[in-house]
Amino acid sequence: MRCEVVAIGTELLLGQIVDSNSSWIGEQLALVGIDSLFQVKVGDNFDRMELTIRHALDRSDAVICCGGLGPTQDDITREVIAAIMGVKLNRDEAIVDKIRMGFESRGRVMTDNNKRQADIPEGASPIAQMPGTAPGLVCPIGDKVIYCVPGVPHEMRTMMQGTILPDLQRRSGETAVIRSRVLRTWGNSESGLAEQLADRINQLDTLGNPTLAFQASGMEGIKVRITAKAPDEGTADAIISAEEGLIRSLLGDVIFGIDDESMETVILNMLGERGMTLAVAEGLTGGVLSSRLSEIDQRMAIFRGGSVSTDIEDGERPGSDCAAEAATKARQDFGTDAGLAVATARPQDEQPRGTVFVSLDINGTPYTQTVSLPGDRNRFRNYAVINALNFLRKTLVGG
Amino acid sequence: MRCEVVAIGTELLLGQIVDSNSSWIGEQLALVGIDSLFQVKVGDNFDRMELTIRHALDRSDAVICCGGLGPTQDDITREVIAAIMGVKLNRDEAIVDKIRMGFESRGRVMTDNNKRQADIPEGASPIAQMPGTAPGLVCPIGDKVIYCVPGVPHEMRTMMQGTILPDLQRRSGETAVIRSRVLRTWGNSESGLAEQLADRINQLDTLGNPTLAFQASGMEGIKVRITAKAPDEGTADAIISAEEGLIRSLLGDVIFGIDDESMETVILNMLGERGMTLAVAEGLTGGVLSSRLSEIDQRMAIFRGGSVSTDIEDGERPGSDCAAEAATKARQDFGTDAGLAVATARPQDEQPRGTVFVSLDINGTPYTQTVSLPGDRNRFRNYAVINALNFLRKTLVGG
Repeated sequence: MRCEVVAIGTELLLGQIVDSNSSWIGEQLALVGIDSLFQVKVGDNFDRMELTIRHALDRSDAVICCGGLGPTQDDITREVIAAIMGVKLNRDEAIVDKIRMGFESRGRVMTDNNKRQADIPEGASPIAQMPGTAPGLVCPIGDKVIYCVPGVPHEMRTMMQGTILPDLQRRSGETAVIRSRVLRTWGNSESGLAEQLADRINQLDTLGNPTLAFQASGMEGIKVRITAKAPDEGTADAIISAEEGLIRSLLGDVIFGIDDESMETVILNMLGERGMTLAVAEGLTGGVLSSRLSEIDQRMAIFRGGSVSTDIEDGERPGSDCAAEAATKARQDFGTDAGLAVATARPQDEQPRGTVFVSLDINGTPYTQTVSLPGDRNRFRNYAVINALNFLRKTLVGG
Repeated sequence: MRCEVVAIGTELLLGQIVDSNSSWIGEQLALVGIDSLFQVKVGDNFDRMELTIRHALDRSDAVICCGGLGPTQDDITREVIAAIMGVKLNRDEAIVDKIRMGFESRGRVMTDNNKRQADIPEGASPIAQMPGTAPGLVCPIGDKVIYCVPGVPHEMRTMMQGTILPDLQRRSGETAVIRSRVLRTWGNSESGLAEQLADRINQLDTLGNPTLAFQASGMEGIKVRITAKAPDEGTADAIISAEEGLIRSLLGDVIFGIDDESMETVILNMLGERGMTLAVAEGLTGGVLSSRLSEIDQRMAIFRGGSVSTDIEDGERPGSDCAAEAATKARQDFGTDAGLAVATARPQDEQPRGTVFVSLDINGTPYTQTVSLPGDRNRFRNYAVINALNFLRKTLVGG
């Protein structure tokens, strides 16, 4: 089954907004085993929209149109779809009431323009989920279908998950489910991981299910995606879990988390489970370490605070000593269980360019690491931070 | 003149990468007055690529193909273009040497695969700019043209600016230049700005040149874009500068910078010009203030450091007093001219939700501000930071 995505809006073509909706939709379609072979952006122009949607419908079984459902005169997706279906628009008074209530619940008044949003092509039906003021549409055309969703990402996603993906799966007659899990790694290259997994990848090439794919995600490490196809969700999950176990035994502790878990989420969870608190000291990473931790630990209950100062990179003594002292001072100043310091080498340390000293003090026990990191300044800062967090993670795992 | 953009790569359809290249290209085309009416994403598939590019070429004067120029077997843009041109590929040995030297300069060895990147369709010419290992291509077809650029953003941008945009302008015969300048504002709503500029916008609607457009850019404030069309660059710049002067007189100091200047860039420049240094103290903003300043001031020569601690939000005294004390302590601890503290209100402060105390100590003189900010936690943090920086900016302007 093939489903194209048409993103509608002149602002997309002018580059005022990046079309991330199509990417998300493409990812979701792939996960349920539906091909999305073309994705098109078109402006708010009747003829070009009609041309594009007709063309997409010709070569696919389904089309998802994203955008152009708002209340202004620019928003003409409803009219274009009615023309393609060869039907007229009828105003759905129940939807008008729903829109009016949405406005009133926020203490605002619905304008007449908003009533246009309740115009439904004859034969189409509104999508039940309606988080905003724009109803989505399911528009059958022969044995094909056009779906219309608003361009507001969270509204689009709610409708995709609540109505469109299940409807597409039903139409495709595909009873198999496809599930995937991402293993997040840090500390090895893509080719290094591929080498460690080479035998298993060869086996899976023969088996065909599950599959493994690598995905470099820059400063957040390399992802290993396990994808399984099975008659039902439970079986798919079981296949994935078995494969995850196997891969963990091959790759060991370079795997720091799964799916959307970031390094800092994992660390904060580990500290939380152990009832431990953390303070940090940073030099040229300039607050990035603190801001990443506090973004997750919003109340700063585990990550208690930190300091940002090039002082930890100055002085007469070796840089590694400065970092060790800063880790202990952070722990003492904030009265935490752990203190983590990350300092970059000075010229007098006579270390290669990009050298970072990481020091950790856990209840008085020191741990240190010296690494050399690549990248321009901004990448280097982020590498230094994730590397320091990974050092803390590995120390906690080992201890 | 019409130019379509075709983004090539199965990973784009699968949502593994968001296609931000097309948006950027669309923006650049608009700035030189070239319409981009359709933008398409297609996977690494010969037939579908050929179909898509032919279709784009049929209805436009030029097509920019982005991606598929790498060294792997997936990268088949060269072959597809040769088929569309009806010519064969010739290996350009000068380009092979250039690729080899690129590898050698980084201490690496070129593989045989990379030689494929030097295959040029007969009649096409390589683009002079070549920041990576993939040469871009200019492929004339009758009086139309296909450009090929790599998907790596900085390589694509270099080729667009160095070759493709000038070539398109030459081809379009459009001798007028279009230039724009963005005025960055903070502290007023879009409707508030529109009201202040209403009379001028009405005048410009009649005049037609320059034009004004608003663009909300979320946590970075609202942009006012001035766009002018003129016979030459000098005249366009003069029109823009005159308009900028007029708008500045109407909007006053809500304008903090132009084009890509961020709030922190502006502040660090202002401090630098005055020979001043800065230290900060943060509570629940958790390091965001420090990391934003240190991202610009890479050596931390002006921004000297800071502390992150919820201590400045604890205690018996009013929150505004805590913030004032923290600002002075930051200035003293780091020996700087200015200390800036941002603290969120505690329940005992009996302030509205989202209240932030901003305190500034400039050489012993205190300045304070209490504001209430909207947004969920992450937006709130960023609003609090940019608001604190804006308070510092306005104080420096006023002093």
